[in-house]
Amino acid sequence: MAGLSDAKGRILSIQSHVSYGYVGGKAAVFTLQCLGYDVDVVSTVNYSNHAGYGRSGGSKTTAAELTSIFAGMRQNELLVADRLLTGYSPNAEGLSAIAELVEELKRTRPNLVYLLDPVLGDSGRLYVSPDVIPIYKSMLPHASIITPNWFEVETLTDIQLVDLSSLRQAFHILHTTYHVPNVVMSSIPLKSWLADALPASIRPYSAEDDANAEYLICIASSATPGNNSAEQVSAVYAQCVPAIPGYFSGVGDLFSALVLGHYYPSTPTTSSSEQLPLAYAASHALTTTHEVLRRSHESALLLPEEERQPSDDELDRLNPLRKTRRMRGRELRLIQSQDFIRGTDKVQLRRMEAWEGFWTV
Amino acid sequence: MAGLSDAKGRILSIQSHVSYGYVGGKAAVFTLQCLGYDVDVVSTVNYSNHAGYGRSGGSKTTAAELTSIFAGMRQNELLVADRLLTGYSPNAEGLSAIAELVEELKRTRPNLVYLLDPVLGDSGRLYVSPDVIPIYKSMLPHASIITPNWFEVETLTDIQLVDLSSLRQAFHILHTTYHVPNVVMSSIPLKSWLADALPASIRPYSAEDDANAEYLICIASSATPGNNSAEQVSAVYAQCVPAIPGYFSGVGDLFSALVLGHYYPSTPTTSSSEQLPLAYAASHALTTTHEVLRRSHESALLLPEEERQPSDDELDRLNPLRKTRRMRGRELRLIQSQDFIRGTDKVQLRRMEAWEGFWTV
Repeated sequence: MAGLSDAKGRILSIQSHVSYGYVGGKAAVFTLQCLGYDVDVVSTVNYSNHAGYGRSGGSKTTAAELTSIFAGMRQNELLVADRLLTGYSPNAEGLSAIAELVEELKRTRPNLVYLLDPVLGDSGRLYVSPDVIPIYKSMLPHASIITPNWFEVETLTDIQLVDLSSLRQAFHILHTTYHVPNVVMSSIPLKSWLADALPASIRPYSAEDDANAEYLICIASSATPGNNSAEQVSAVYAQCVPAIPGYFSGVGDLFSALVLGHYYPSTPTTSSSEQLPLAYAASHALTTTHEVLRRSHESALLLPEEERQPSDDELDRLNPLRKTRRMRGRELRLIQSQDFIRGTDKVQLRRMEAWEGFWTV
Repeated sequence: MAGLSDAKGRILSIQSHVSYGYVGGKAAVFTLQCLGYDVDVVSTVNYSNHAGYGRSGGSKTTAAELTSIFAGMRQNELLVADRLLTGYSPNAEGLSAIAELVEELKRTRPNLVYLLDPVLGDSGRLYVSPDVIPIYKSMLPHASIITPNWFEVETLTDIQLVDLSSLRQAFHILHTTYHVPNVVMSSIPLKSWLADALPASIRPYSAEDDANAEYLICIASSATPGNNSAEQVSAVYAQCVPAIPGYFSGVGDLFSALVLGHYYPSTPTTSSSEQLPLAYAASHALTTTHEVLRRSHESALLLPEEERQPSDDELDRLNPLRKTRRMRGRELRLIQSQDFIRGTDKVQLRRMEAWEGFWTV
């Protein structure tokens, strides 16, 4: 356990806080602490619970409050993190204050590893103010890694992802126009054109997984500098995992934290064979996230029936507590999964495999 | 590891938050999560760092914001913790909002275990607004356990603790006037009258500890209902630990969290012999707190010289960063101590021993 006992580094996390449940900082901070990092925690909102419940209490942190916290840290020489993680920020004023800090940190700490999770929305719907989009675009060149979902890639690149060619175009824009070295998209439904494009080495159906299950795919793309021809912009890796039924909140926040926590700019040699730093981090993030979800799903199945009613907008409208109870039953079982996060309970690694021919076939 | 993997319970923690370092919620929440509890987290302030640095940024959470968070949780049926922990609250308005919630929770959840840490000040100096004192006095009857320091016992009971008789009088007031079943005072300098009053079984000098060291004493007093004569108000336990040199912030917050985390109203039978629930909890809290402090002290000794300058108000005034750097070097090494907190790295238990004759000799 020497690895956990020694100081591993310091991460500044700037994202949402909820009193109850596990999204934003509540999903990320404990996870990174379990991995051995000191985490400095700044909250962009202080809400009672996540938005999925339909109602919540609390308040947004104003830009002036964020600036005051950063000023206090600066004055006391406490802006000393070697890693930075930014997530949900509800409006342009707050995000601008964060963007200023990012520029300062990149200037003063040139080795800063910065994971930017551009939290914009999902499934075609924005859940932040639209004026944050240009600010995120301006922040992209500072990021070491970004973890957008499908919708966020479309929004940031203005490319509709409808086939392999548009996916290539989007990665090309992120790597070359925005100079992002590392991109990881997770939890992507395995559409048929995606499944058809995958090389045989990444076909989803493994022996232990159900051949009838639905699958999600995770794609990681790591820029290959000095090889910036349109044909070979990056090294692309992918892996499929069986989809866990139902919707859980905070999964993306957990995944992003795990990618950052497992990212080592010079990768430690793994026992099997070496992987690029990004592929190594994404493999571990994918494995742990899936394990937390599996466990959360299993626990949810054991709840009383009223806590696990299926989604039904009409019935939810008649009784708002119906939705509330479903949400409560679907909070991540993060605390109960801590031995998996820490790696003391082992599971088979879901290894990201090279997507040979992504740029050329 | 079954004990850690299963849901252990849910704690609502209401206290301070700092972005950098480990006081208030930053000391308590991770600790309780490591012990297996889901923790709902409400912050009474959001500061950049603790007050010991001399300067800080951020803001207090207003009473209206606290009330809004509690209302959101109430509306969504999220006030479901079976344990409550309250700590630092900077002013009367905020504390009144918390006191209202406490009354509601005690009414609706009669088995609630409530640890109240009445954070008022230390060494003769208040560090909250004086109008919080009557509010704390009104909250005491709702508490299952309180963890005041020496100064806070004096302030709440209006008794100067100068001899065994006044100590008895203070405990008597807390147990019978304020109906507090359990009181734990930790980190008490072992004054000579206290050392002289201790029974031989609690004499400080053990084989492994340095006979020349300074000692602190922890005293736990658990009311014995049905035995409310002035002679035998409570069962009293105590233990001495060697003092770790220098001042560390957040130690009381860590200790209180550990007492609550290890408190089982019906104590599990321990391998050696059974202890009262409070003595069991205090023994584990004392042991872990000492271990975290020992480790923090050892790490501080390895820092560059400018990070470990001794306290000197005059030199600090000339260069405020001198104090800042000392504070930064003296943050608790909580993350690096997580295996001790969790109990996977074992240390010898510092067992609270019965103080026979406390009320009678």
